[in-house]
Amino acid sequence: MSITTDQLQNVIGQASGSQPCKLVIFGAGGDLTRRLLLPSLYDLAVADALPTDFQILAVDRPEQTGAEWASRLFGLAEQDAKDPSAEFSCPNLDRSVWDKVTAGAAYLSGDFTQNEIFDRLGEAIGTGNVIFYMAVASRFFSRIASGLGRAGLLREDGYFRRIVVEKPFGHDLASARVLDSELRAQAQESQIYRIDHFLGKEANQGIMIARFSNVLFEPIWRREYIDHVQITASETIGVEKRGAFYERTGALRDMVPNHLFVLLSLIAMEPPSSLAAEAVRQEKTRLLQAVRPILPEDYVSGQYAEGVLNNADVPGYRNEPGVAPDSQTETYAAMRLFIDNWRWGGVPFYLRTGKRLSGRRTEINIVFKKPPYALFNQDMNDPRIGNVIRFLLDPVRGVSIDFDAKQPGLEEVVSPVRSTFLYDDFFRKEPNVGYEALLHDCMAGNQMLFQSAETIEASWAAIDGIVNPDRAPFLYPAGSQGPEEADTLLARDGRRWLSVT
Amino acid sequence: MSITTDQLQNVIGQASGSQPCKLVIFGAGGDLTRRLLLPSLYDLAVADALPTDFQILAVDRPEQTGAEWASRLFGLAEQDAKDPSAEFSCPNLDRSVWDKVTAGAAYLSGDFTQNEIFDRLGEAIGTGNVIFYMAVASRFFSRIASGLGRAGLLREDGYFRRIVVEKPFGHDLASARVLDSELRAQAQESQIYRIDHFLGKEANQGIMIARFSNVLFEPIWRREYIDHVQITASETIGVEKRGAFYERTGALRDMVPNHLFVLLSLIAMEPPSSLAAEAVRQEKTRLLQAVRPILPEDYVSGQYAEGVLNNADVPGYRNEPGVAPDSQTETYAAMRLFIDNWRWGGVPFYLRTGKRLSGRRTEINIVFKKPPYALFNQDMNDPRIGNVIRFLLDPVRGVSIDFDAKQPGLEEVVSPVRSTFLYDDFFRKEPNVGYEALLHDCMAGNQMLFQSAETIEASWAAIDGIVNPDRAPFLYPAGSQGPEEADTLLARDGRRWLSVT
Repeated sequence: MSITTDQLQNVIGQASGSQPCKLVIFGAGGDLTRRLLLPSLYDLAVADALPTDFQILAVDRPEQTGAEWASRLFGLAEQDAKDPSAEFSCPNLDRSVWDKVTAGAAYLSGDFTQNEIFDRLGEAIGTGNVIFYMAVASRFFSRIASGLGRAGLLREDGYFRRIVVEKPFGHDLASARVLDSELRAQAQESQIYRIDHFLGKEANQGIMIARFSNVLFEPIWRREYIDHVQITASETIGVEKRGAFYERTGALRDMVPNHLFVLLSLIAMEPPSSLAAEAVRQEKTRLLQAVRPILPEDYVSGQYAEGVLNNADVPGYRNEPGVAPDSQTETYAAMRLFIDNWRWGGVPFYLRTGKRLSGRRTEINIVFKKPPYALFNQDMNDPRIGNVIRFLLDPVRGVSIDFDAKQPGLEEVVSPVRSTFLYDDFFRKEPNVGYEALLHDCMAGNQMLFQSAETIEASWAAIDGIVNPDRAPFLYPAGSQGPEEADTLLARDGRRWLSVT
Repeated sequence: MSITTDQLQNVIGQASGSQPCKLVIFGAGGDLTRRLLLPSLYDLAVADALPTDFQILAVDRPEQTGAEWASRLFGLAEQDAKDPSAEFSCPNLDRSVWDKVTAGAAYLSGDFTQNEIFDRLGEAIGTGNVIFYMAVASRFFSRIASGLGRAGLLREDGYFRRIVVEKPFGHDLASARVLDSELRAQAQESQIYRIDHFLGKEANQGIMIARFSNVLFEPIWRREYIDHVQITASETIGVEKRGAFYERTGALRDMVPNHLFVLLSLIAMEPPSSLAAEAVRQEKTRLLQAVRPILPEDYVSGQYAEGVLNNADVPGYRNEPGVAPDSQTETYAAMRLFIDNWRWGGVPFYLRTGKRLSGRRTEINIVFKKPPYALFNQDMNDPRIGNVIRFLLDPVRGVSIDFDAKQPGLEEVVSPVRSTFLYDDFFRKEPNVGYEALLHDCMAGNQMLFQSAETIEASWAAIDGIVNPDRAPFLYPAGSQGPEEADTLLARDGRRWLSVT
């Protein structure tokens, strides 16, 4: 990815704890492998953070050798390095580093819907630590897991065997439960690494540290002081080339039970008793299990129509490639939810996400109640009154605090001001090593940032009443703040979205 | 003072509420009148904020006419306007504005230790609103008040009669009580305006608004979360030309029971139920009455020796003009105190003030406790751990919040960062209209920012055990942070002063 050796070594350099292991990649010729997995392995190699005796076993259908596979992917990496629109790439691609990643790579050709390939795989890997990375469509997860299980490849015997899967983890509550029971029929929960790389390790732990290393925040982090919470993940991009995938998924499934709920759990969970993966995952799960199932009337979906963004005309969703001309798929989702526990009872959480919005911004706003009485002639109906703690997560990272101060002058006029801390002002600008960090955690056996089965089930349960809506999405012009109906969701409570632009 | 008409009109312009009144100045030829009172009246005239029918009655010993007095002071104002070292002056001095202030000024020559002058004064003022401003040494306060009383000039009869006095209000608890009973024998508390212009209306109300307009702060403003509080008023200047005065006063009397205790009461008082002057003064008094008398072992005094400041050699205090070569007067005072109430029980407040220190800074630091357990491998003995809310009052104004954030990188390293709000970044830079505002409040009858008799008595009571110490002050070099013994005051509690430079 677009970072220098120096930067990466600084960030990842001291990290340790991973033992020798092999990496089996199912779907080794696919897009995920090319776009995300190999560039991340490349970065780990740059930082000298790959396990000793690291070896890839690539699995896919075409007949080829390991060397041919490695060489073909190097060619694609060279292409990506020159493509400024590629989200992930290795701009300073160095053949010798690449060779370190793919040194001794073996390649198995075959159909992983058949058992035969797993027997051959077993022979190839023998004993020792193995990570099975499923860079395939989610409908193959169960099939691969049962193939591995049937062949005895998931048995741990003084060495580890781990499965890595990327979301989507199911399509709704029922299918998520089926997938989970199929995976767990073959492997222990401790062997399953469900990656959600949206937030990244930095931001994830940044929120936890802000909440739990500071006496300032924890005492006021509760219903007595907080009026409501807003979580926003807005994008300016459309569906790009993912129209066909997106048609079956939509904004709600694509973003909410995973990415937005990760933010929700981080901002709202109880303090864990330690940073042990299980302690943290338990608190996240407990929080998501306390989310009251969202009602249809608390949900607004939208779909972008043509519009203007950054002074350019952009097409509507229905005119994107791979999208049906009468598509009812939502590209925007907003909802209100409640958390039924003592900390949050009665405090609304408003979540929204969407494509082709006016600005790119991932942030969490904690909006505090107004003071109990107006000491300074404030108009207590002024919507500006009330403190806000804002976690800025993307594209800038930091924390800002809005509070009220005296406006200079003889009269007592109260005026909102902002105190801001930005990461880039305090720390050397560091590369975002999100995916690398997750792979490294998997190799080191740290599940903290991976989703647990319980978390996923609780997430799907919360949105189970809205995943199949009766209502078509409301249209909104590309480049806007989303459909007006999403404003109504807050307006009926006497609140309003804080601007994202 | 150094402000433009435009600025002042903006700040002071809409202020209203003052009725026609006369201003009687005792000590009209003195330094206070020249340095502070007339420049402030001038500024009020610029802002068109003088009462209608405003008229000065100047009282002093020399024989002269009102016009001669006004003209002489205009000459002095012209000198001051050209003197860059003058703290207060009217740089754009305009004769026509000056004339507005002194228009129709009457002058009474006489000795205000004699009754006769008060009879003549009574004839001169007749009926109507009058402010008696005592620009004289404090030893004359009682004498003037009783002269006014004897002549019946303090009787209110459909008009107001107000006395304005500047600190010092007594020299210790006993003398403060005597002065108070003498003043109150002649006038009601509501007629007595005790000016303490150290803080100014802006900063004063700024602290109140920050504390009581923000839900963020009030819940954590208590012993459960706050480890200790530091209040610092450090100066780089020495005693200048005030050696003779300072010899009798010292840093403790000069700064603590008035200026520092105003800061203490603002930062620690309970929320008043309204901004009515009496409601606010009551809370300040209640707070100061809860201060446990300070013990000698909790007090450290210092005196500056010669040293280097801003790369220049500066003399020690004992070599300053008007100072005894073996002076035992302190130019530095530091103390620890406790407030015996439910909010603050057990929380130490450390106060310090001094001359010829390394930096000029007035600020309050609220230092919070450490989190109850270390989630992130912090060294809980690291003195950097713990949140700090800092009220910056002089020379820059603002609020900064120190908290902990994640240092970028794969490891969980917690690092202190700072979020800052500065007034000048948010508001048009406004003139400091401290004294003008107080005069204006006096004319409008608002006593909120003036000290009450109870407040002053409680302040003296708190330091009564340390005003006459057995111990000579510790010497510290000019340009340092004060005597080392002041560090010990905190070090014995396992704490340290936050740096002022």
